Amino acid sequence: MSDSKPRPSAGPSEPVPKAVVSRLSLYLRELEHLVREGHETISSSELGRRLGVTDAQVRKDLAFFGHFGYPGIGYRCEELILAIKRILGTDQQWAVALVGVGNLGRALLGYKGFAHRGFRFVAAFDVDAAKVGTEVEGVPVYHLDRLPEIVRAHRIRLALVAVPAAGAQLVVDRLAACGVEGILNFAPVTINLPPAMCQVGVDLAIELEQLSFAVVNRQAG
Amino acid sequence: MSDSKPRPSAGPSEPVPKAVVSRLSLYLRELEHLVREGHETISSSELGRRLGVTDAQVRKDLAFFGHFGYPGIGYRCEELILAIKRILGTDQQWAVALVGVGNLGRALLGYKGFAHRGFRFVAAFDVDAAKVGTEVEGVPVYHLDRLPEIVRAHRIRLALVAVPAAGAQLVVDRLAACGVEGILNFAPVTINLPPAMCQVGVDLAIELEQLSFAVVNRQAG
Repeated sequence: MSDSKPRPSAGPSEPVPKAVVSRLSLYLRELEHLVREGHETISSSELGRRLGVTDAQVRKDLAFFGHFGYPGIGYRCEELILAIKRILGTDQQWAVALVGVGNLGRALLGYKGFAHRGFRFVAAFDVDAAKVGTEVEGVPVYHLDRLPEIVRAHRIRLALVAVPAAGAQLVVDRLAACGVEGILNFAPVTINLPPAMCQVGVDLAIELEQLSFAVVNRQAG
Repeated sequence: MSDSKPRPSAGPSEPVPKAVVSRLSLYLRELEHLVREGHETISSSELGRRLGVTDAQVRKDLAFFGHFGYPGIGYRCEELILAIKRILGTDQQWAVALVGVGNLGRALLGYKGFAHRGFRFVAAFDVDAAKVGTEVEGVPVYHLDRLPEIVRAHRIRLALVAVPAAGAQLVVDRLAACGVEGILNFAPVTINLPPAMCQVGVDLAIELEQLSFAVVNRQAG
């Protein structure tokens, strides 16, 4: 890689605040939008303006990971898209499992936003005999007891946990025992996370609280 | 209110960063957890430690909204809980509508995490004749055409939008026309937000990106 190309570092040398990683996703969305609009380059100030953050914040966020801008040009959209995907780990395809084929699980299997982001459901798991053996949105539903075998066969590293709160800890422990490395947890319960497993919790009540704050304080947008 | 009590200001005088508002929700969760554990007070450093932020960050976040700590004591948990609820607007009950009674909509209506946070579903809307007139999780499903009437009758101010992407803009416009002030948007599409309407977007692919980043960079937890 020549010196004039964007240089993602081997990995951030200091812990990266979660808020920074969240903004990477937003930058990625906006850059892809820009490319569709025909833009080839973008300045940090214009990228920031579109997302409601300062140009200094944009530069600081990206500086965690390397040097990406060109003097007098700004960022090359396609290059920065690829760099951010590398940072997020979505330049590769992830084989993903779902555990819990209830209403939420079905909605997640049908969610259109995952596949083109690099996340592909390869298996769903449940303990309900009426569901095991069926397909939902083209994804086969297996009994939870087959977890080790299917995880190994598909090299599943990430799982979405959409089971009732009471069953969540056991499911997470079983996923960890099979070598699954990360869970997106929808169960409204605190999980004792097994060592070496990562978790992102989705608490929809928090999103509603953010909304009520916005309404009460009229910070539209 | 005496000078020694926590003093939420009338409202923040400067725009509050979204990350700060997000952390308020986390503080609230942790404080409620502390109360259940029998704690009456907590220091900013201990509260921060439990959530992985510095004590300075805790104090700075809360300082947007007033003065809450007591020298030599820290925060009184119950008082701070109430103060944060006031700030977030969840010291009141919100009547909430759902639009779109598909798998996701059904999952949302059954989500246990909303009610005790102050959000109560009072109505669901769809255009499917097979769904209109039924109840889902105890919530009546109305035809979308009855939106103005039902919104007025129940004083609905917030709505969850769980319709397909293609229909989302029209639904949001209709909600705005009825006076609904905020939407939690699950449709994976950019909405042209009507004036005076607030939006919080839920993009589950972003959560998965955060998870893949964590796994790739092994920032467990």
